[in-house]
Amino acid sequence: MKKYNFKDSKVIKEIDLLKNLHSWSAQGNLDPIVVEKAKGIYFWDSNGKKYFDMSSQLVNVNIGHGNMKVIEAIQEQAEKMTYMGPGFAVDVKSELASKLLDIAPKNMKKVFFTIGGADANENAIKMAKMFTGRDKIFSRYRSYHGATYGAANLTGEPRRFPAEPGIPGFIKFFDPYLYRSPVDFKDEEEACNYYLEQLTEQIIYEGRDSVAAIFLETVTGSNGVIIPPENYLKGVREICDEFGILMVCDEIMAGFGRTGEWFACDNWGVVPDLITFAKGITSGYLPLGGVLVSQDIADFFNDTTLMCGLTYSGHPMGCAAGIATLDVYQEEGLIKNSKLRGKVLGEELELLKEKHPSVGDVRYIGLFSAIELVKDKVSKEPLVPYGQDPGKIMPLILSKLIKQGFFTYTHENIIIVAPPLIIKEEEIKEAMQIMDRVLSEVDEMLK
Amino acid sequence: MKKYNFKDSKVIKEIDLLKNLHSWSAQGNLDPIVVEKAKGIYFWDSNGKKYFDMSSQLVNVNIGHGNMKVIEAIQEQAEKMTYMGPGFAVDVKSELASKLLDIAPKNMKKVFFTIGGADANENAIKMAKMFTGRDKIFSRYRSYHGATYGAANLTGEPRRFPAEPGIPGFIKFFDPYLYRSPVDFKDEEEACNYYLEQLTEQIIYEGRDSVAAIFLETVTGSNGVIIPPENYLKGVREICDEFGILMVCDEIMAGFGRTGEWFACDNWGVVPDLITFAKGITSGYLPLGGVLVSQDIADFFNDTTLMCGLTYSGHPMGCAAGIATLDVYQEEGLIKNSKLRGKVLGEELELLKEKHPSVGDVRYIGLFSAIELVKDKVSKEPLVPYGQDPGKIMPLILSKLIKQGFFTYTHENIIIVAPPLIIKEEEIKEAMQIMDRVLSEVDEMLK
Ligand SMILES: Cc1ncc(COP(=O)(O)O)c(C=O)c1O
Ligand SMILES: Cc1ncc(COP(=O)(O)O)c(C=O)c1O
Repeated sequence: MKKYNFKDSKVIKEIDLLKNLHSWSAQGNLDPIVVEKAKGIYFWDSNGKKYFDMSSQLVNVNIGHGNMKVIEAIQEQAEKMTYMGPGFAVDVKSELASKLLDIAPKNMKKVFFTIGGADANENAIKMAKMFTGRDKIFSRYRSYHGATYGAANLTGEPRRFPAEPGIPGFIKFFDPYLYRSPVDFKDEEEACNYYLEQLTEQIIYEGRDSVAAIFLETVTGSNGVIIPPENYLKGVREICDEFGILMVCDEIMAGFGRTGEWFACDNWGVVPDLITFAKGITSGYLPLGGVLVSQDIADFFNDTTLMCGLTYSGHPMGCAAGIATLDVYQEEGLIKNSKLRGKVLGEELELLKEKHPSVGDVRYIGLFSAIELVKDKVSKEPLVPYGQDPGKIMPLILSKLIKQGFFTYTHENIIIVAPPLIIKEEEIKEAMQIMDRVLSEVDEMLK
Repeated sequence: MKKYNFKDSKVIKEIDLLKNLHSWSAQGNLDPIVVEKAKGIYFWDSNGKKYFDMSSQLVNVNIGHGNMKVIEAIQEQAEKMTYMGPGFAVDVKSELASKLLDIAPKNMKKVFFTIGGADANENAIKMAKMFTGRDKIFSRYRSYHGATYGAANLTGEPRRFPAEPGIPGFIKFFDPYLYRSPVDFKDEEEACNYYLEQLTEQIIYEGRDSVAAIFLETVTGSNGVIIPPENYLKGVREICDEFGILMVCDEIMAGFGRTGEWFACDNWGVVPDLITFAKGITSGYLPLGGVLVSQDIADFFNDTTLMCGLTYSGHPMGCAAGIATLDVYQEEGLIKNSKLRGKVLGEELELLKEKHPSVGDVRYIGLFSAIELVKDKVSKEPLVPYGQDPGKIMPLILSKLIKQGFFTYTHENIIIVAPPLIIKEEEIKEAMQIMDRVLSEVDEMLK
């Protein structure tokens, strides 16, 4: 076995392309940025070029890069104890569970730790089925819940397809995506009622007693920051109660201050039965995810075997990173910051919408936002048709942003904007000037 | 949010039971050991009691606990860069891919990194389906491949059940578990041929052109260290070639020196099309897993989109830990050590089998071994019937081992013995004396 110590960025890239498989891409014409350094809301490539990290690396690094408190916690834990199996009691696992339950909705009583988002959802599915003794699982179109089979079968968009033929009993319903609703509603309330009635009807036709759980991203993330109308989540909660269905909020992307509250469901005072989380819990410094469960569910598994498990459940390193990350949120006031700076971001987005013919809609809550591009503001025709972009227009727009130092990602005709929660007002304004310039170029394309 | 800093082991345990969900258990009567320290092949509970870690924490910590080389690599990487998204090229990701491909079978050309074992298998399933354009997946009874839906549907034992109703097209076949084969074979060769013919027939009845992949644990692990007969894997390889099926070796538990070779398939000179790995790659110091793919598969995804992805694919922290761990294997000669010490362990096991009426079979390869307990050596009746242990005999036996400082785990009527690869000859002998004493007590139970 050879010793390598790649320093030359050309070699790093060449080897990367030769030996690593990249997610969600054909490998043939990739051109990955070689990253050398990251600090705060910025990272730098091997040419010294600096980027605003305007999507926090897959809406993950909420506290920003290079936070010394978390780094030191990792270093200390590495010295103390790297790994013990899930069957043991370990100080940091008890501590993180305590801290997490302190900030979670009050009905949450226990936590099952996983290592990522997909497996958090996988375990929530199994828990819901065991608890209810039912097999059907509802989730929504325009959602992403992960890429393993169970999580992918929850997912309501093409990233599900490789996990088909699907798992029997996984059923999709439509979410209130009001910007593109097929019905012309009088107001948000009417729309909300329509979608809740539709959901009720679908449950009845699937069998009143057959649905174990309804999974939803509290705020739909990568499919375009789709924010539920005012009474929607409360309505879903009521439907769940009526039919004995568990409500599972996927807060993997929306949790940990992203929307201006610890958990996105706090925005509407709704208490789910299970919450799945990942990303923000450690801000990505180390892999960690998990499932929070209510007292009823926790109690159920006192006598019934919890048929869930993974080697790295409750990994001490991840727990140590999680403890420090939660402290950072609190000590640096990042949840509040998300709400405050989110106002600034929202204002910027409204200005862009007003100014640019190519901007059909902007949606934002806390520091979680999306810009939806259209060919025409009135017809709302998307800039690129769903699942099709033969002219590679969206990659072109993205590359313009990145070239000017605004790093983010796109989904269909949508640009995600979700910077670390430590971002300052002037930094938002500076970054959004880049967006403004690029959107002007998009406007030009429409002519 | 309160600050906690649990030091008192009573509190750590109390909070653990109150707030953490433990895998594969009913939570009501758990009594977890509070672990405070781990070093080499030992760990210590909060009373200062020392344990031989005779299963390396779920057959994971191959290099032993507290290895400073890996700890320092983690600490340095934490300072340098904790996380960058999977789309970037990062030095440690290129470096680990290079090192891994250097030790992997020569036909392996690229790697896709995941965070654990289950998701490694999940991604291998999807790759195999995409590559072949086929939907059916074969795997074996008496196998464990993980607990997420896809991995659980590969799994051939009760840990699959919560992931049912099953995914369409996941089909099980029987492995050559010669100790309990229903046929009385003349010799290993005859048995091997029988199982290969059965497999061929099953493939034909499922449709010659419909099977995407055959998944197998190269050496079946948690279901009892079932070692394939001499020509079995070669035979599976030939069957795969005949029908255009991909051969996937799950080396999550068997890889990285556990069997005395880098990969278990090296023992028989067989080259699979995909290898899934986890555990040993970092010895559990940080979560990491992945899929190794052959040139053909790598090339296929040059033009076809790889519909796989997870936030933590290629996590820089895991990669840094992996690089250091591979160095440790090599610098400390652990692969060779596994083979050498495995001989000693094998001799000890044979002595136990000879001596104890309760020992029906012992199986070992490298430092990967199992003791199968029976009521009667001749009838081979298992000490407890499959899936049933109303008298809680196996937990009783396990608790006796643990009380005397021999920590491991059991599966059905089987005790796993798989210490860290750094174990010394005298340590094996010392630990196996405890086993000897406990087996004498088991013998007494039979009277
Ligand atoms: C809402 C949501 N759920 C689940 C996931 C899957 O998480 P992971 O990528 O860690 O598997 C993601 C990932 O982006 C997500 O945004
Ligand atoms: C052979 C094998 N495959 C897959 C897995 C699943 O790995 P993980 O627990 O990391 O999901 C295991 C875990 O023990 C295993 O032994």
